[in-house]
Amino acid sequence: MTLTAAPATHVWTLEGGLTAAFERRKGPGFALDLRVPVGSAHDPVGLEGLAGVLEEWLYKGAGGRDARQFQDALDDLGVRRGGGVGPEATRFGVSGLTADLPAALALVADLLLRPALPSEELPILADLARQDLEGLEDSPPDLLATEARRLAFPRAPGSPFAGYAHPASGTPEGLARLDVGNLRGFLDRYGTRGSLLGLVADADPAEVRTLLERTFAGWGLGADETVPALFRPGLRAHVPYPEAEQTHLSLTAPGVSPRGPDWLAWQVALTALSGGSASRLFHAVREERGLAYSVMASSVLLGGQGFLTAYAGSTPERAPETLEVLLAELARLPQGLTGAEFGRARRGLTASVVFGAESLRARASGLTRDLAVFGHVRPVAQLRAQLAALTLEDVNAFLAGYHPAAQVTRVTLGPQELVG
Amino acid sequence: MTLTAAPATHVWTLEGGLTAAFERRKGPGFALDLRVPVGSAHDPVGLEGLAGVLEEWLYKGAGGRDARQFQDALDDLGVRRGGGVGPEATRFGVSGLTADLPAALALVADLLLRPALPSEELPILADLARQDLEGLEDSPPDLLATEARRLAFPRAPGSPFAGYAHPASGTPEGLARLDVGNLRGFLDRYGTRGSLLGLVADADPAEVRTLLERTFAGWGLGADETVPALFRPGLRAHVPYPEAEQTHLSLTAPGVSPRGPDWLAWQVALTALSGGSASRLFHAVREERGLAYSVMASSVLLGGQGFLTAYAGSTPERAPETLEVLLAELARLPQGLTGAEFGRARRGLTASVVFGAESLRARASGLTRDLAVFGHVRPVAQLRAQLAALTLEDVNAFLAGYHPAAQVTRVTLGPQELVG
Repeated sequence: MTLTAAPATHVWTLEGGLTAAFERRKGPGFALDLRVPVGSAHDPVGLEGLAGVLEEWLYKGAGGRDARQFQDALDDLGVRRGGGVGPEATRFGVSGLTADLPAALALVADLLLRPALPSEELPILADLARQDLEGLEDSPPDLLATEARRLAFPRAPGSPFAGYAHPASGTPEGLARLDVGNLRGFLDRYGTRGSLLGLVADADPAEVRTLLERTFAGWGLGADETVPALFRPGLRAHVPYPEAEQTHLSLTAPGVSPRGPDWLAWQVALTALSGGSASRLFHAVREERGLAYSVMASSVLLGGQGFLTAYAGSTPERAPETLEVLLAELARLPQGLTGAEFGRARRGLTASVVFGAESLRARASGLTRDLAVFGHVRPVAQLRAQLAALTLEDVNAFLAGYHPAAQVTRVTLGPQELVG
Repeated sequence: MTLTAAPATHVWTLEGGLTAAFERRKGPGFALDLRVPVGSAHDPVGLEGLAGVLEEWLYKGAGGRDARQFQDALDDLGVRRGGGVGPEATRFGVSGLTADLPAALALVADLLLRPALPSEELPILADLARQDLEGLEDSPPDLLATEARRLAFPRAPGSPFAGYAHPASGTPEGLARLDVGNLRGFLDRYGTRGSLLGLVADADPAEVRTLLERTFAGWGLGADETVPALFRPGLRAHVPYPEAEQTHLSLTAPGVSPRGPDWLAWQVALTALSGGSASRLFHAVREERGLAYSVMASSVLLGGQGFLTAYAGSTPERAPETLEVLLAELARLPQGLTGAEFGRARRGLTASVVFGAESLRARASGLTRDLAVFGHVRPVAQLRAQLAALTLEDVNAFLAGYHPAAQVTRVTLGPQELVG
């Protein structure tokens, strides 16, 4: 197998405090991902939707350009806008051709440092958020994901933050209370503290560093606060949805901390559980019994902790058996993987590490994700070596003490409640 | 701007008749896309769902392995399975680490040339397809897309093919009629005729060619028939969906042939219409009026022709205005683009050409798509040069004769019918 030379990754704390990771890569394009540690979980109680509307508002003109001029300037560069608001962070992504990197960076800095924030746009933005919430009502799987998050991660008593109990688009009540004052005030949270910039481009590192320092000079400090995720174990809830054809099931259980020693072992176990056509869930639920068309489990990170979530959509008649099979698969995890399962899961993870670093955009957001989640950039070659060093015994020693079924919280949505 | 050397693309007609395109690229991974020109449009009338169930059936064991052993063999290689059934073709995609390419190819060939086709799996597969259809009922945007396709592209009278009027999962009636006999008979359509293989890997071209010829030796001829797409212009239809929160709108109109001279001009025009935050639809529907959270237009290829489709989801109250704005934007296309719009759209397209070729998987399927749609592989550098040579005058000369609004077919889905 040919191994390409690992690209050097530079991680800098820029003058002004912003942390940046840069990876040089040959090719005509660049990709940038800027992660500000302010998300919908930081919405103040009663103002749910604030972070989401603020992000959209920033695009409504900046650096002396009005909304239309700013959008035209982005499109003039042919750059693609990415990112958006998640529970813990807001991401600004742009990608394009290398010659346009300085101009694209300048537009991102305008957006963050010199936004116009025109008040007349606010009613339209709140309206769009309301429409997004209405659209959610029309999609049972998305509605279930929202409800499961709300029930499994209730707001901490006394916390000023609304937390993980609402979608990024907010709530109708929260959106109704948004105004110029509370939005502008919230923008003070944005700043260099905890913000992370990932950049992949074919450019000289020293020049890139100078360019970044010049471009983001003058950005304030902001706030970097983690909203803890308080998991409520053992809950059973049903969301009535009489007109649904299917019953949708969601399970949430504790996982592993990304900064702890068991992270990779957990990832291998999750891959064996749900990572391919030979995975346990796919086989037991779909292939052997034909219970559900979609079934999956994955890890989710909230408040610095990892959680296991699983989903399946089934007919109302088969939903009880589907749930039973899902729970049984979680319950037998402590018995460990077979050697064959371990080998398959490790190979699958290794391939996904290689392919995940392949595209510029994915790599740029991988850089900021690594910094945010693990505190450092994980070079692809190092990650592959760690996976190669992992043994079946390591994974099974971890699994012997891992009992997600004991604490699982389950939420269903559909025409009738599940018995049992 | 740095331009990397264009990778050489080899296009071969292999012994046995299969057409293959190979692009050599440095790196540890490979990606393969095999496109067989048999899709859900080829389902015989009354057997809707046949192509979809057949594709799933192929994975139920091959080359002397049973279903479980075959899935384990795929996962043992750590390869990722991709592809699926579209209206016109069925695609088999695998990607993984280069050392595993011969073994992965052998598994794909087993699947196509030596499938086990165990009869006991059929009821489960038909059941999963039925569950997928039920899931469709729970997703108004997907249901609308299916209904719009059915209404805009009715089956040709007298055609043995069911055509474009049903989703790949079929219909309950069609699924009920599937049996071992008609599925095995349909598999005879699979073969080298019209099948296209795209491969990107770091390997010696001569060795790759030998490997492909050896691996696919003995594959039959099969059938390569295009199902014509008969567009029904000027239709207005409403699909009642009383419990939906939103009204969903779909427009379909004629477009341009991918092998004709106006293809790129049309693509630039579509990008100006819907390709970014400064695009006409995004601006008029979402930014200026806040009418809809999602609005988009794109090209779709059916039966060798291009069509324009547009979609928006709005509140029932605002749906009439949303429709009006969509139609007005289509109606003013013949007036042409401004110079600024043209420049933006061309830059956006150029960037998407560069980024679209970046990942191995995307490039492998790009190779087979190019062969299927354009009859030859379009090198990225050549496509960029063609875009650079295109002028505003070219695009506006094309647009002056392009009147999609005159023939538009519109389908809505929601709690109440639109008036007007």
